[in-house]
Amino acid sequence: MAAPGAGFWSFGSEEGSGDPDNPGPAKAWCQAAQKFTGGISTKLCALLYGDGDKPMETGATKEEPTLRKAACSCNKKPCGCQKEDINYAFLHASDLLPNSEGEAATLSFLQDVVDILLQYLVTNFDRSTKVIDFHYPNELLQEYNWELSDQPQTMEEILLHCRTALKYAIKTGHPRYFNQLSTGLDMVGLAADWLTSTANTNMFTYEIAPVFVLLEYVTLRKMREIVGWPGGAGDGIFSPGGAISNMYAMLIARFKMFPEVKEKGMAAIPRLVAFTSEHSHFSVKKGAAALGIGTDSVILIRCDERGKMIPSDLERRIIEAKQKGFVPFLVSATAGTTVYGAFDPLIAIADICKKYKIWMHVDGAWGGGLLMSRKHRWKLNGVERANSVTWNPHKMMGVPLQCSALLVREEGLMQSCNQMHASYLFQQDKHYDLSYDTGDKALQCGRHVDVFKLWLMWRAKGTIGFEAHIDKCLELAEYLYNKIKNREGFEMVFDGKPQHTNVCFWYVPPSLRIMEDNEERMNRLSKVAPVIKARMMECGSTMVSYQPLGDKVNFFRMVISNPAAAHQDIDFLIEEIERLGQDL
Amino acid sequence: MAAPGAGFWSFGSEEGSGDPDNPGPAKAWCQAAQKFTGGISTKLCALLYGDGDKPMETGATKEEPTLRKAACSCNKKPCGCQKEDINYAFLHASDLLPNSEGEAATLSFLQDVVDILLQYLVTNFDRSTKVIDFHYPNELLQEYNWELSDQPQTMEEILLHCRTALKYAIKTGHPRYFNQLSTGLDMVGLAADWLTSTANTNMFTYEIAPVFVLLEYVTLRKMREIVGWPGGAGDGIFSPGGAISNMYAMLIARFKMFPEVKEKGMAAIPRLVAFTSEHSHFSVKKGAAALGIGTDSVILIRCDERGKMIPSDLERRIIEAKQKGFVPFLVSATAGTTVYGAFDPLIAIADICKKYKIWMHVDGAWGGGLLMSRKHRWKLNGVERANSVTWNPHKMMGVPLQCSALLVREEGLMQSCNQMHASYLFQQDKHYDLSYDTGDKALQCGRHVDVFKLWLMWRAKGTIGFEAHIDKCLELAEYLYNKIKNREGFEMVFDGKPQHTNVCFWYVPPSLRIMEDNEERMNRLSKVAPVIKARMMECGSTMVSYQPLGDKVNFFRMVISNPAAAHQDIDFLIEEIERLGQDL
Repeated sequence: MAAPGAGFWSFGSEEGSGDPDNPGPAKAWCQAAQKFTGGISTKLCALLYGDGDKPMETGATKEEPTLRKAACSCNKKPCGCQKEDINYAFLHASDLLPNSEGEAATLSFLQDVVDILLQYLVTNFDRSTKVIDFHYPNELLQEYNWELSDQPQTMEEILLHCRTALKYAIKTGHPRYFNQLSTGLDMVGLAADWLTSTANTNMFTYEIAPVFVLLEYVTLRKMREIVGWPGGAGDGIFSPGGAISNMYAMLIARFKMFPEVKEKGMAAIPRLVAFTSEHSHFSVKKGAAALGIGTDSVILIRCDERGKMIPSDLERRIIEAKQKGFVPFLVSATAGTTVYGAFDPLIAIADICKKYKIWMHVDGAWGGGLLMSRKHRWKLNGVERANSVTWNPHKMMGVPLQCSALLVREEGLMQSCNQMHASYLFQQDKHYDLSYDTGDKALQCGRHVDVFKLWLMWRAKGTIGFEAHIDKCLELAEYLYNKIKNREGFEMVFDGKPQHTNVCFWYVPPSLRIMEDNEERMNRLSKVAPVIKARMMECGSTMVSYQPLGDKVNFFRMVISNPAAAHQDIDFLIEEIERLGQDL
Repeated sequence: MAAPGAGFWSFGSEEGSGDPDNPGPAKAWCQAAQKFTGGISTKLCALLYGDGDKPMETGATKEEPTLRKAACSCNKKPCGCQKEDINYAFLHASDLLPNSEGEAATLSFLQDVVDILLQYLVTNFDRSTKVIDFHYPNELLQEYNWELSDQPQTMEEILLHCRTALKYAIKTGHPRYFNQLSTGLDMVGLAADWLTSTANTNMFTYEIAPVFVLLEYVTLRKMREIVGWPGGAGDGIFSPGGAISNMYAMLIARFKMFPEVKEKGMAAIPRLVAFTSEHSHFSVKKGAAALGIGTDSVILIRCDERGKMIPSDLERRIIEAKQKGFVPFLVSATAGTTVYGAFDPLIAIADICKKYKIWMHVDGAWGGGLLMSRKHRWKLNGVERANSVTWNPHKMMGVPLQCSALLVREEGLMQSCNQMHASYLFQQDKHYDLSYDTGDKALQCGRHVDVFKLWLMWRAKGTIGFEAHIDKCLELAEYLYNKIKNREGFEMVFDGKPQHTNVCFWYVPPSLRIMEDNEERMNRLSKVAPVIKARMMECGSTMVSYQPLGDKVNFFRMVISNPAAAHQDIDFLIEEIERLGQDL
């Protein structure tokens, strides 16, 4: 059956007719011509419309008309090679699959999108290209017409949009992109993500995601094994990011101590308090706000000069809270803080949690990856004593966004905490083993498939491949540290070799080097990093983050998780900062 | 620079050497041979290892060796066409980009993955193929070795895994897949999702997602316009699914009434109650449990026989709650319930919310799409009076998973409710307009780019394209209803034409038709749908959901959101149910 109303919007915005039964005469002929194959339809339409009459948007970049003539020499059926001329200026979404005659056009269109993506990929890794072609928001908004309208556009315009979107995108796989904890672009992970999109399903039941549900089961078990829980026993889920994983941990910890909170709410239980370090991620407070615990009930524990939680301060504050009548229910230790990359002393914290019977969560969103390295995993010693662990493979392990795991030691707790027994999703009389229907332990109903890219990368690299990547990134961070620790114009924010790949430093321009260490100098220094960063982005040469922290004014936080980065890129970064900042 | 440690894992699992500086002799030679181009390396490696010595996994399906020889006749540089022989049996992830010599191998590998995906796509829409090749969890676990190991696998094995994953996947785009509210596979949406994966970035700041942040801004404003808020004013976010969108609404409603809850928690505010219908989605209760409100504080309002909330019962329960000293803070009305597809009477509910000063949320996850149809949008009349609206383009609008929007009428509220001012992410001294850094209003820190697929589909189809799709699905549902309402062996669960595409019915096998309407008949009837469903899945012919609801035993819930579905598929479904159930 042809889609009813397909004619309604098959040929663009000219003539302004919204009446499906009465398209303009050129439209009607051209629609009829679509029945022909072998490029005849395109030629007919071109004749009918004339060249100047194509429905085109003003403002979009014009490149050469997309007309492909390619001989297919492959043996695959179907293949992505073009078998006929396709003029995208006359092709619309309604001409693609599931339109019964849409197969050739679909394959051609998708292949052309892939060609655009592959072209982008290659430049992504090319040091001679910019990391970003930066434009201010208003410029971008004015330069293009991004608005959504009633009428369809042609596939030619759609392909242009794809090119435009990538033209202004950050090249997150570029060897000189260091801006976030998640950088790089893994080819196997990318392939897996393309496959995930193509499968287009949802994780809530085995019924509709059999392979992915099993892979999640296998992968989470493996991750728990690596954490150190015997036989990989326990529970877990892939959640939409580390903040949500941490929120899960808080939710489950509260439920474990006071299961009645699920039905009765916070009104029925004592006043709770959670503890985390002053350098911890803001998601701990965000979670407390959301869960009705309140940010005031998150007590920030002091850190040493390297950003590690001070256990004696933790114990003191626990005792203090108990004396005030509050109930400590959670300690969220951090393995790899966002700015300093510090690892809280997990063994000492575990002892305290055991002593006071408090749920120990380890936020290893950033540092969890180090568990894959025999050389560096000691930094997380004690993690095996945690009740729950957040670990984001999309950070240090280079898995494409988004891939965050929450691991829980006690099995069944997530299910009891979150299940609502929706009978329309989790039917109890299905014909297969229901333990694979994992949706009811989630906060989400629909849940994106985040596991396949991690699983496929793991198969492709092996654990030792992840290890090699992590060791290399740590080695590069040490290289950077060694190069700048005594270099003129650089000041380290904290002393000593970095524990993670975070290297925090100020660049001090020549004009400031001779100044006394007073308020004016601090004030001027605080403006250096933002200006250098703005210049970097305008040049598009590299990207690195900066921020103030506590009483420390704006400093650069370099992090390395990018598999494309090499020593030359570290050298470049140092010189680029000097070049961009010397006149400040 | 070559990746340090790359040799550590470049050639598979034999020899068991973990020492990067001392690979086995064949490995070392083969590694050296990688420097040659033109297929020489492959041939050298094959010679060195011999055929029987390839590192291969037992248990994986073997197809013909993946050796491609393709002439490139396109003019694109770079292109996805193969320029040299690549033997995947000797290719590893470490040989791909960013490996400096990995370009050709990468393009070849990704092109081969795309060929697998395109092949899958075409069969997806082919009615002569199965919707699913069903296997029980234990069968699948035993048939393949899914485990993760220390050693890398070859790209040949990786390609096999891709084929295997798709072999057992549900064909969610298949014209006879009706199992969930999200079905179908849109080609433009898919292309956009591939692009999104390739861009591999995060929505928290304009800095790292300039185009996507602007497109989210434009798209949310357009959606608010369609809801009916003047000029599209207001706020919103794309969240990881409807359950999280509903949770946001509850969170913001609570904050609006008692902003001190953010710091002080639920202990500092009165006991809250929320209202939703007994047919509403379970996420309302799930959200209440998570937010510390408690499921007991979600009062379920009675529905009429069509599943619509009864406004008089809502008002009665509000008054009752207030008399008990509770504070009503939220009414979550449903536009398109999950099972019946019912639309709550929004105007009457808006009047009550106004009278009692309660936040009105509309859960239009499923029904929101009807706003795009001039013929059907009256069913949501009154939605413009809501304070917040959940609307999932990944359901009725056929956008690939995951794409859910929460729209909020009052601007700035999300930001105040959720912001934590993390200085390392949302620096206040950046060089561009900070209002585009939307991350701090989210519960998530990292947030996946969900907007591009919706935006690109909208450009490709126009609003009228979505309208045509929705009208067609509704027409098909009416067609199904008309065919079965008086058909022997079918009983409707509720009377009258469906409001959405949900058609709920029992199939009554011949043996039950002659029985009296007693408990035994009910008991037997409750077993019919599960058996037919199991048989459907084993045949792989079609998939449709079933569930009990209240005092109604297991019935089929047919829903149509699949753009590939046509009248013939509805006819098929009816006959297939009869075929599979006649002996019961």
